[in-house]
Amino acid sequence: MNAVEKSLASSSERASRAQHAQSLEDLGDERPHGPALDSWLLSRLRAAIGDPPVEFAIKDRALVGPADEPAVARVTFDSRRTLMRTLSDPQLRFGDAYADGSVAIDGDLVLLLETIYRSGAAARRGDSFLRRARGALRRPRSNTLTGSRDNIHHHYDIGNAFYSLWLGSTMAYTCAYYPTPQAGLDEAQVAKMDHVARKLRLRSGETVVEAGCGWGTLALHMARHYGVRVRAFNISREQVAYARERAAREGLTGQVEYVLDDYRNISGRYDAFVSIGMLEHVGVDNYTALGEVANRALGGQGRGLIHSIGRNFPAQLQPWIEKRIFPGAYPPALSQMMEIFEPWNLSVLDVENLRLHYAQTLRDWLALYETASERVRAMFDERFVRMWRLYLAGSVAAFTTGTLQLFQVLFAPGESNDVPLTRAHLYPR
Amino acid sequence: MNAVEKSLASSSERASRAQHAQSLEDLGDERPHGPALDSWLLSRLRAAIGDPPVEFAIKDRALVGPADEPAVARVTFDSRRTLMRTLSDPQLRFGDAYADGSVAIDGDLVLLLETIYRSGAAARRGDSFLRRARGALRRPRSNTLTGSRDNIHHHYDIGNAFYSLWLGSTMAYTCAYYPTPQAGLDEAQVAKMDHVARKLRLRSGETVVEAGCGWGTLALHMARHYGVRVRAFNISREQVAYARERAAREGLTGQVEYVLDDYRNISGRYDAFVSIGMLEHVGVDNYTALGEVANRALGGQGRGLIHSIGRNFPAQLQPWIEKRIFPGAYPPALSQMMEIFEPWNLSVLDVENLRLHYAQTLRDWLALYETASERVRAMFDERFVRMWRLYLAGSVAAFTTGTLQLFQVLFAPGESNDVPLTRAHLYPR
Repeated sequence: MNAVEKSLASSSERASRAQHAQSLEDLGDERPHGPALDSWLLSRLRAAIGDPPVEFAIKDRALVGPADEPAVARVTFDSRRTLMRTLSDPQLRFGDAYADGSVAIDGDLVLLLETIYRSGAAARRGDSFLRRARGALRRPRSNTLTGSRDNIHHHYDIGNAFYSLWLGSTMAYTCAYYPTPQAGLDEAQVAKMDHVARKLRLRSGETVVEAGCGWGTLALHMARHYGVRVRAFNISREQVAYARERAAREGLTGQVEYVLDDYRNISGRYDAFVSIGMLEHVGVDNYTALGEVANRALGGQGRGLIHSIGRNFPAQLQPWIEKRIFPGAYPPALSQMMEIFEPWNLSVLDVENLRLHYAQTLRDWLALYETASERVRAMFDERFVRMWRLYLAGSVAAFTTGTLQLFQVLFAPGESNDVPLTRAHLYPR
Repeated sequence: MNAVEKSLASSSERASRAQHAQSLEDLGDERPHGPALDSWLLSRLRAAIGDPPVEFAIKDRALVGPADEPAVARVTFDSRRTLMRTLSDPQLRFGDAYADGSVAIDGDLVLLLETIYRSGAAARRGDSFLRRARGALRRPRSNTLTGSRDNIHHHYDIGNAFYSLWLGSTMAYTCAYYPTPQAGLDEAQVAKMDHVARKLRLRSGETVVEAGCGWGTLALHMARHYGVRVRAFNISREQVAYARERAAREGLTGQVEYVLDDYRNISGRYDAFVSIGMLEHVGVDNYTALGEVANRALGGQGRGLIHSIGRNFPAQLQPWIEKRIFPGAYPPALSQMMEIFEPWNLSVLDVENLRLHYAQTLRDWLALYETASERVRAMFDERFVRMWRLYLAGSVAAFTTGTLQLFQVLFAPGESNDVPLTRAHLYPR
């Protein structure tokens, strides 16, 4: 699923802590104070994230910004106290401060976050791969059978009514596929489902198992348009209830079965295995087990596809997102995704990176979300409105800046030669 | 480059050694002898590779084979001594015995090797991933700057006249791309070059650096048909001489420069980086250095493509191939290939597995090779003819059975958004 990334770049944490400590303990009489301290703290924050062309201010007290270029936006802390609290753990506290309104943004939120991502990445370019990779070792909350249930409940059971405000008519909560830049959200979500079905070369009468089916849209689409029978697994009670109701309404209960259960409990043999946007919640420790499930489900033939947010190298999920939005989530690097396939001699046939499609999907969601913000406020509160705005805007920025990737991996059992010669069938005219 | 794989399955080594030792040392009076020993040894060999439907014989002495199905071929050892020598190190000695004529094959060589690969893989299916992965730790000969020169000289400097007998008119010694099953070898080699050029989205006036250019065909093709300027690196003296002569003859010396040097010495900035069939000779230890070269050559923009034989999981190259045909070669798993990209924030955009295209390419080469076998014998000797026949036939079998893969990986610097929305441009009508 989606994820805001490193909203205030990770190096800021190290750098600002070190410099802050120095300023308050060692500087003695040299220590800035009063307005000078405010400006000094703001400058430290700005320097730590690579001096982006952004103004940072404490309301009515101090302002720092770029000397020789226009600022793309201004970030205003309501007090020195909020700034100090943010500096103590910027990756977590900035999001909280924005959510509770003690930080205000003047300017375009997406542009601001893109700018900070880019300057932060440039500032980190000197970091060694090992230092960056170390992030991968910080493990998110565990995804045991019950842990997964709690984690998934946290995000997906917020309420179908809420999600239906901004996901568009398909209720697909994963990266869409825009055949042209002019395509709209609903069209692109349908195109994504067809793109996946073509990659899997679904044929009428075949059976499909889906691991993590969201509100059930893909399963219904495959059943109706490709004539397959689908068993679709999901541990979100709200989503499964919604999906079952929809299948009944559309007269597809004979073809599609929604199972309220963990992917680890998938049994039986199928012609195709598909999982769209579940891997982010699986946890690297469970990848080999997921591969075993897929391998067993295919039984030496057939095709599989896993679609997931990923990264160019191993790194932890942005801490605010992991804590407030997606507990237990982790977007893997491709080297990590291979832990699904390699232990089982599953052959990777095709990997497609759809990063810019996810940026566009999120832009479309964000626009609908803003249109519906009054209704979201009525359902929840202002804090919730701001939290989810930051998450959606930050996710746009993460995909446009290459902080996050979107990988579709098509695979087949290693011993199967039922492989198309070319991929031309994916691009019908 | 190409590689025969596990011609007599790897488990045969462990199993036959253990069983052989037991038979000769521990059985005492129970030890079979005379004709019974011959049959017993042949049965042990056959069982160790999963009891394939193949007959194994010692000439004029003993024969074992499948009880209830027809045999696809017969393998005849000229003496018990040859069989014993083979059993002492089957992975290396079988190839040697075939090459010197002390093993004869009745039946289709490719079909025989495919059958043995499949039964061997089935027999190994009980092996743990760790046991299989252990093979990856056995390192081939090292690819230092001088080591690479020696290793490459061993294979590629055999003689341009030899290779021109069976590579077809393009002299491309890498996997071709068959747009249709009816395409011929030369057509498929040209289609491969266009497929690569389209993936790289080459535009007139751009610059390209090629790491490992073989006889220079791709560089000339890109220059002539895509209007780019190319610097192409290769450490094979014979190949570079051939390529330079060809560029002069075709009037392209102004657009294509062939450099007799190691890829590690590539300097300058380019719009595209391409490497077709060199990675197999690079060695996993040098992948991060290769990625650094590519990253530096692109300088934060542009596109790169690496095309290589690979595997579904880490494992060593078949020992006979590594020793007799391709010293220092190693086909990586995708998880290993990621060591090129992840340390440098290079973003993987597209991975295509062309395994069955390589099987077809090798079938086409093998057919031309057999047609030219008298001329090969005149150039070298019978032993050489048989060695290269085994290598080509075994490589067909490795790709048809999924023992080897062929990965084309398209990548770009992580911060670049110069990425096409879809891959439809690869499939013009």
